[in-house]
Amino acid sequence: MPRRYLSWMVAAAAASKTIIEVTVVGKDRKGVVADITNFIFQNGGNIEKINQNVVRGLFGMQLEASFVQAKRKDLDAGLKDLAKKLQMEIKVHYQEPDRLRNVAILVSKEPHCIKRILAGRKKGEIKANLAVVIGSEPSLKPVADEAGIPFHSVSHADQAEAERNILDLIEKYNVDLIVLARYMRILTPNFVWRYPNRIINIHPSLLPAFPGAYAYVQAYERGAKIVGCTAHFVTEDLDQGPIICQESFKVSDSDTLDTIKKKGQELEAETLFEAVRLYLEGRLEVYWGKVLVHD
Amino acid sequence: MPRRYLSWMVAAAAASKTIIEVTVVGKDRKGVVADITNFIFQNGGNIEKINQNVVRGLFGMQLEASFVQAKRKDLDAGLKDLAKKLQMEIKVHYQEPDRLRNVAILVSKEPHCIKRILAGRKKGEIKANLAVVIGSEPSLKPVADEAGIPFHSVSHADQAEAERNILDLIEKYNVDLIVLARYMRILTPNFVWRYPNRIINIHPSLLPAFPGAYAYVQAYERGAKIVGCTAHFVTEDLDQGPIICQESFKVSDSDTLDTIKKKGQELEAETLFEAVRLYLEGRLEVYWGKVLVHD
Amino acid sequence: MPRRYLSWMVAAAAASKTIIEVTVVGKDRKGVVADITNFIFQNGGNIEKINQNVVRGLFGMQLEASFVQAKRKDLDAGLKDLAKKLQMEIKVHYQEPDRLRNVAILVSKEPHCIKRILAGRKKGEIKANLAVVIGSEPSLKPVADEAGIPFHSVSHADQAEAERNILDLIEKYNVDLIVLARYMRILTPNFVWRYPNRIINIHPSLLPAFPGAYAYVQAYERGAKIVGCTAHFVTEDLDQGPIICQESFKVSDSDTLDTIKKKGQELEAETLFEAVRLYLEGRLEVYWGKVLVHD
Amino acid sequence: MPRRYLSWMVAAAAASKTIIEVTVVGKDRKGVVADITNFIFQNGGNIEKINQNVVRGLFGMQLEASFVQAKRKDLDAGLKDLAKKLQMEIKVHYQEPDRLRNVAILVSKEPHCIKRILAGRKKGEIKANLAVVIGSEPSLKPVADEAGIPFHSVSHADQAEAERNILDLIEKYNVDLIVLARYMRILTPNFVWRYPNRIINIHPSLLPAFPGAYAYVQAYERGAKIVGCTAHFVTEDLDQGPIICQESFKVSDSDTLDTIKKKGQELEAETLFEAVRLYLEGRLEVYWGKVLVHD
Repeated sequence: MPRRYLSWMVAAAAASKTIIEVTVVGKDRKGVVADITNFIFQNGGNIEKINQNVVRGLFGMQLEASFVQAKRKDLDAGLKDLAKKLQMEIKVHYQEPDRLRNVAILVSKEPHCIKRILAGRKKGEIKANLAVVIGSEPSLKPVADEAGIPFHSVSHADQAEAERNILDLIEKYNVDLIVLARYMRILTPNFVWRYPNRIINIHPSLLPAFPGAYAYVQAYERGAKIVGCTAHFVTEDLDQGPIICQESFKVSDSDTLDTIKKKGQELEAETLFEAVRLYLEGRLEVYWGKVLVHD
Repeated sequence: MPRRYLSWMVAAAAASKTIIEVTVVGKDRKGVVADITNFIFQNGGNIEKINQNVVRGLFGMQLEASFVQAKRKDLDAGLKDLAKKLQMEIKVHYQEPDRLRNVAILVSKEPHCIKRILAGRKKGEIKANLAVVIGSEPSLKPVADEAGIPFHSVSHADQAEAERNILDLIEKYNVDLIVLARYMRILTPNFVWRYPNRIINIHPSLLPAFPGAYAYVQAYERGAKIVGCTAHFVTEDLDQGPIICQESFKVSDSDTLDTIKKKGQELEAETLFEAVRLYLEGRLEVYWGKVLVHD
Repeated sequence: MPRRYLSWMVAAAAASKTIIEVTVVGKDRKGVVADITNFIFQNGGNIEKINQNVVRGLFGMQLEASFVQAKRKDLDAGLKDLAKKLQMEIKVHYQEPDRLRNVAILVSKEPHCIKRILAGRKKGEIKANLAVVIGSEPSLKPVADEAGIPFHSVSHADQAEAERNILDLIEKYNVDLIVLARYMRILTPNFVWRYPNRIINIHPSLLPAFPGAYAYVQAYERGAKIVGCTAHFVTEDLDQGPIICQESFKVSDSDTLDTIKKKGQELEAETLFEAVRLYLEGRLEVYWGKVLVHD
Repeated sequence: MPRRYLSWMVAAAAASKTIIEVTVVGKDRKGVVADITNFIFQNGGNIEKINQNVVRGLFGMQLEASFVQAKRKDLDAGLKDLAKKLQMEIKVHYQEPDRLRNVAILVSKEPHCIKRILAGRKKGEIKANLAVVIGSEPSLKPVADEAGIPFHSVSHADQAEAERNILDLIEKYNVDLIVLARYMRILTPNFVWRYPNRIINIHPSLLPAFPGAYAYVQAYERGAKIVGCTAHFVTEDLDQGPIICQESFKVSDSDTLDTIKKKGQELEAETLFEAVRLYLEGRLEVYWGKVLVHD
């Protein structure tokens, strides 16, 4: 790892500091930044990163702070009060490196990606508690059942309602990492902002090429000679989040759209699994939109 | 003005608070956010807005803070020390609503926009100290001379050097507002981040349509039936900054590219002038990328 | 009308030539261009315009030819044979300037645009046979009923099937012009290529700004100070077809998304109606992607 | 080679037909399509492909026709007359598969791509007459000199004039293939339309990702984990022409912008050379924007 990338998280840990991540989501109003930052300062915290955004009147803030001595009880109580005062939803994530991570897998119809993750856990390639599988439809219930993981089918007739239901499940299972294993829906900022750098998606192209739907069709029609896939963190900008892993293969004249899709899907499964593995091993750091993979 | 837009600046002023704007630009390094925000907090300030960005290894931060009692001397000295420690360039702008604004006008070859501003000041339509005209070439020196304003021609053979020279002039003339009056160069983040919401440009299209060069040609070839122009604040994203004013006219079959350009240029001059006027009257507020025009 | 735009159609008519438009759509195969152009030539025609495209293996060709003496019977029979041989669907449109045009109006839920067209016909502002109204859902049946126009609701559960059903209706009613009066579906090339410059859509933005869905929301969030709408011919590129008419209005700080939508919808109705009127009066010529409006 | 791609060129050759390619470029005027297609028909030709475009008032047409018996003398004379009548520049390329191809290499400063081509010819990997090297500046004259190839430095102060001068050289050396070996200028339609599928460029990214300038910088800043390059035919749409070859490599955290550029340049040289080799071996067919590589 090049020294210039020596993570402040690592440095903080070395200095036995505590890192907390705070997310704030709610209807936009003035004064939120001042109130939150003041609260952190008054409790002895240093603001290491801070980011805010507003989309369609919805405000989202992500903040990372370091504490020499974090009084978790005081922070929790204080932020709860602040949430009430500001009428915002505020959530705190404490970094507890030694705790087994709880993982939610979101799926639609395609089984190849979830199957690779399940196989990887079985083989001991990853250590994690695969806590819950959530489907935008019931197709993959048997896959979850066989692995002995709770499966919830969430109706997506109304996307906002679907997201509320998924958020409830995420909360209930105390989820640390959300894996979109060919989950074919687009999550809104209201969802995404609550889990910065905690949602991993697999996209069937070498982003930024061929974003959006029908990536293989687009690549095939464009005559691309190299096709691939990208595992990335999810942000409010569709298919533009930080890239974790990319894999590719060559296309020849004898390939059809079908053979490209088939090869692509195998690669998707491996690439997503690799990204999940790196995450669970604590080796990923996001820095200004780029993912650093630490040894 | 709708109540929900009641500016915190206005509110702060009403509460006799002082607002300061701080810009930080330099080679990206860890810990800058923590150091700057801590400094503000320890000096009794509330952080109202904070924004950071990194492009090509260059870090930029803009921050607005309110103080019940701002000790200008302490702030200046402290930030100077911080700049030395962090090896960053830090600048503070104090809001002094009653001071006459110093304006720099940047030009290339086209005279119509600068002429409108000069005429407007002569007629008393705006109150400002037109401090300096800077040209990417010497063509418009006579225009500045006639108005009795210092003119500096800055060679743009090397854009980075050109920007350093312009920044020196901006500093020397203590400029509050930079007006790009058909200045045909693209300013880099290193320049733009130092003057958030203080650089106004005129673009010859109804943005976001037809960004980039050759806007009239594009509109003409696309067969647009309405053509216009946009005055906007300049950000690091070309032609994507907050829109201040837009004006338009109808195109008919009898219009040629030449008649469109001619009508467009007249409109550019008026639209840029209107934006400058609104700025100087303190009526513009930028809020999440949108410009609010207060009465 | 500037002389340089003197239409060859007009010129052809003056020379008492006959103009025919031929569309060819089908699975891509070699030799089609040669067979069709040879046929035209051997029947004494001049090829004035010719355009081909392939999307996802579907071939589409549009061709305009002029004849000093067009033997309609021979052409019809020959093209029918050719269609069988090439296994392509071939259609011929003869220009019959004096015949009353048959118009199909496609709608979804919003009534403002269709209502304006119905009112315009009632007032005699346009002359046309409003032959059929086709809805992607049944909401607007009462509007068609009241005007005494047949209404067909076509299920869009499957877009390909929906298009086949609409094409059947279009054929049945011998439709010359298809008006998309806030029809909220995207037509595929298979549909669009059969009616080059015969499908008019209304889009709620000043294209090319804000294409796609949610145009008003996008304009509002971007802080556009001028908002408008565009009537355009439909091509296979969504929202990129030749622009017929554009209208706009100014947005002020007191406007909300709701007031913008309301003003926008009124303008949509007027703008689409104006485009339909110009079409029916034979005053529109499409020339290299631009629409010329003849006096 | 899959049967469905059996080229009509191959088929035509098998049937001992002659294929000619005609390009027409000039100021747009009506009637050109009719005149040219009529000429082909009257001389016994079949039109296999035809494509036209207009950009900024400039008309360009490319046409491929097959003849059972092509009378070259008549065709040449007739098209010359037609060019005079239409005031257009018309050029004919006859397919002469057995003739050694004349190649022009266009360069700017970077030597790696041209050097690879020169080495390849020396080693006998390609058979071609490297007829001329044209530089947008004189830097690479020594490289051409050493290989014994005429070098012409063309001033690019005025792009239109530069293109006229290059076209003269291309004509003088009777060039069949133009290779852009890191030639850092953008050719206009007026140039490109004269050599459809005869200009090969190398772009330092996996197109369509990272088009335009600074492709490596963009890829590095975006955090791409796979970086590559693309050899493609040049069309009027910058970096959007048919893709011939693509090659890629993996980026790790230890890579800097410099190491990425270094690896990229080696790959550029190989990839461009491979594309040139395939072209010279007559193995490339462009079909609806895709390149088929025949065995």
